[in-house]
Amino acid sequence: MITRKILLKEEDIPKQWYNIVPDLPRPLPPFIDPVTKEPGVGIVPQIFPKEIIEQEVSQERWINIPEKVREIYQIWRPSPLFRAVGFENALKTPAKIYYKYEGVSPAGSHKTNSSVPQAYYNMKEGIERVTTETGAGQWGSALSFATALFGIKATVYMVKASYEQKPYRTMMMNAYGAEVFASPSNQTSAGKKILKEDPDNRGTLGIAISEAVEDSLESGKTGKKANYTIGSVFNHVCLHQTVEGLETKKQFEIVDDYPDAIYGCIGGGSSFSGLIWPFYYDRTTKKAPKETKLIAVEPTACPKVTKGEYTYDHGDTSKLTPLVPMHTLGHDFMPAPIHAGGLRYHGIAPTISVLAQEKQLCTLAVNQVEAFDAAKIFIRSEGIIPSPEATHAIKAVVNEARKCKETNEPKSLLFMLTGHGFFDMAAYGEYFNGNLQPYEYPTEKVVESMEKLQKLYPWLNDVRKKYIDK
Amino acid sequence: MITRKILLKEEDIPKQWYNIVPDLPRPLPPFIDPVTKEPGVGIVPQIFPKEIIEQEVSQERWINIPEKVREIYQIWRPSPLFRAVGFENALKTPAKIYYKYEGVSPAGSHKTNSSVPQAYYNMKEGIERVTTETGAGQWGSALSFATALFGIKATVYMVKASYEQKPYRTMMMNAYGAEVFASPSNQTSAGKKILKEDPDNRGTLGIAISEAVEDSLESGKTGKKANYTIGSVFNHVCLHQTVEGLETKKQFEIVDDYPDAIYGCIGGGSSFSGLIWPFYYDRTTKKAPKETKLIAVEPTACPKVTKGEYTYDHGDTSKLTPLVPMHTLGHDFMPAPIHAGGLRYHGIAPTISVLAQEKQLCTLAVNQVEAFDAAKIFIRSEGIIPSPEATHAIKAVVNEARKCKETNEPKSLLFMLTGHGFFDMAAYGEYFNGNLQPYEYPTEKVVESMEKLQKLYPWLNDVRKKYIDK
Repeated sequence: MITRKILLKEEDIPKQWYNIVPDLPRPLPPFIDPVTKEPGVGIVPQIFPKEIIEQEVSQERWINIPEKVREIYQIWRPSPLFRAVGFENALKTPAKIYYKYEGVSPAGSHKTNSSVPQAYYNMKEGIERVTTETGAGQWGSALSFATALFGIKATVYMVKASYEQKPYRTMMMNAYGAEVFASPSNQTSAGKKILKEDPDNRGTLGIAISEAVEDSLESGKTGKKANYTIGSVFNHVCLHQTVEGLETKKQFEIVDDYPDAIYGCIGGGSSFSGLIWPFYYDRTTKKAPKETKLIAVEPTACPKVTKGEYTYDHGDTSKLTPLVPMHTLGHDFMPAPIHAGGLRYHGIAPTISVLAQEKQLCTLAVNQVEAFDAAKIFIRSEGIIPSPEATHAIKAVVNEARKCKETNEPKSLLFMLTGHGFFDMAAYGEYFNGNLQPYEYPTEKVVESMEKLQKLYPWLNDVRKKYIDK
Repeated sequence: MITRKILLKEEDIPKQWYNIVPDLPRPLPPFIDPVTKEPGVGIVPQIFPKEIIEQEVSQERWINIPEKVREIYQIWRPSPLFRAVGFENALKTPAKIYYKYEGVSPAGSHKTNSSVPQAYYNMKEGIERVTTETGAGQWGSALSFATALFGIKATVYMVKASYEQKPYRTMMMNAYGAEVFASPSNQTSAGKKILKEDPDNRGTLGIAISEAVEDSLESGKTGKKANYTIGSVFNHVCLHQTVEGLETKKQFEIVDDYPDAIYGCIGGGSSFSGLIWPFYYDRTTKKAPKETKLIAVEPTACPKVTKGEYTYDHGDTSKLTPLVPMHTLGHDFMPAPIHAGGLRYHGIAPTISVLAQEKQLCTLAVNQVEAFDAAKIFIRSEGIIPSPEATHAIKAVVNEARKCKETNEPKSLLFMLTGHGFFDMAAYGEYFNGNLQPYEYPTEKVVESMEKLQKLYPWLNDVRKKYIDK
């Protein structure tokens, strides 16, 4: 009998998160304030609690996980590491395939790993309400879950197109007690302005960020300060996600194995970071028994690392954030309507950009049609229906497993199954009806965006040379 | 640290199912063939595989679980027993509350416990396709999952009203490779006949059963025999569900506790049976350390045990099944449109009727508004969103936990969380918008139905006296 679910006990939930920053092969470039053109974090201190800001810039390798956070983690953590027995058989591969499954969280994805500490630190500082934006709804659901459990309120600005397409997501957030507004909304001046110009505007993540941030900033003027929360990209979010990789390493010890390659999809990069950072730690400490390949998988429709440029850019369309050192397709990038909503982000976590630049990881772009082709094999052999985001990693694993079959190499392949696809069945419906488009993002478009960015900030190359290029 | 998830290892998946039949306080009354008016199983032998029929009528106490079935069970079993720490705090009760959570199965409910062995036995007999009906879609999804993993086909007749209301369910079944028809369909003569008379007919579970059974019977005339499968009521289905209770008992041993009361919702009664049968076994063998109360919870909209009559009735609207000895509201009962689709069945597993008659369990009816009120507390303290069916059990637990608070009794309460509510968010939406109706089923209606049944089979009281009444 091969064990399918490699399980840990609740005592094994990590007591500390692992921070990669001090172990990066080169220092993480700072944020740049576009006004002063100097390192600076802009509005960050006004919208986040103290402990989150400290984590964001921390150089500490290990950061304690508060006991209250671990208690909530106990609801679904440690999450199972699956040995994909059925999938291996279906692919007739000698490879051993493993997946870390984060769909067991009550909100259905890895996002709760960060929403719980974010809600906790805000609650601890006496904050009674937090704001956020959500695209497909995974982050909004995760934050709503976490705030419910800590007894504070959440206000979620959800991209109107998604809000209309996915009413179940709003109902879920409401069930947790959160307030959800279709963005652009009449709640903020940013939203009102857009609606006045274009009453039919169906929103973007950039607009939703602007609304959530404005709500937080404005609330600061009242007696009822609300903080802002974010679901990816930032260091502290990736940090919180490291419970994934720390657990996975223990789980591999149980079966006396170690991955030859690790795959994960990247949107903002937090779930992938959470899985690979602890394995990267093994590499830097020379504890890794193998040269493990780290592979970030992005959609061809949003190829920020494979086609984008490593430079400074805003994290949001509305240019509210400071300039972030990352691979980008341009802050005004308009993604094709692929179903993996979580992967439609123009940029990436700055730590991933450093790791990519230093050739510590590699990146692969796959299109959503081939991703769903791979998911079909997975669903009918493992039974679990993956989120559209995770199907991209599955496609990369299928490629490698087939190579292993040709070469008869029994490699150990690990991938991140970020969540289930129960709220994304429409995507599967479209796939099975043959209506899915692969979507490629043309290189010319990236060139255009970069020229525009250069025009906006003519001094950009100088800071880039100073902090990013070697 | 209180452990929230009491977990077992995959080796602990039971090796045998427990069959309550030989331990019932009185013999299970036989099915009656309405033509001969004598004990008989009608079409049963034509539509089920041999091993299922043997299990259906078995007097064996322990029945081996095939190794191949246990291998698939490993994907989600043993399922966790949760200690509801957050819920207890929210209710400020001294009671210890536990729930067995079956929503971890890939199809999202307990139904897979039976769909997997049913698919297996059919596959083993060389059957390449099975048919079934589904209302809300839980059983159809579970069967589609199981057949995909055993490489056989499933044809699902889904009540048209549900088919239209819940497109995600069909997409899920398609993802597993199943064929789904809105019932009434043009696939069967039963469907065609109904559509000819009423092209706008939106279907009932009874019609869907007729179509699935006809499909199976007709296929027998071709070289490609398809069997029929069923998701509840029958003994073999309840038998398969006993993995729930067998695991739960081991989990209680780990925390050195034993339930004072066990709650579960009842539709056809299989999930509840699966949980209580093994505890009932402790009672009959005098191994139970306590007098555990067993409480079946039904909706006021479909109060088969609390208001229905214990007599003989058909299992389906179309009178295809033999007469089943059970509590019933009448086979032509039209349930109110409550959201707990799985509880809208007019009858109940015959074993539950015997246990109720012999006062081995008690029954409680709650309405869906109070059920959702209880679910709201549960969601915001435990984080998991329950299926509408399971909310009924939660309401009963809330009542008892509040009583415990008044009397300061630290009772141990256990309930069955049959599945998650991710496909039922519309129900929550309606609840939070205040649009939910409680629905009561009037006693007069039951009287009417029983008179009709009596008229249909004037000899019914004779067989009832002979086999059911003492």
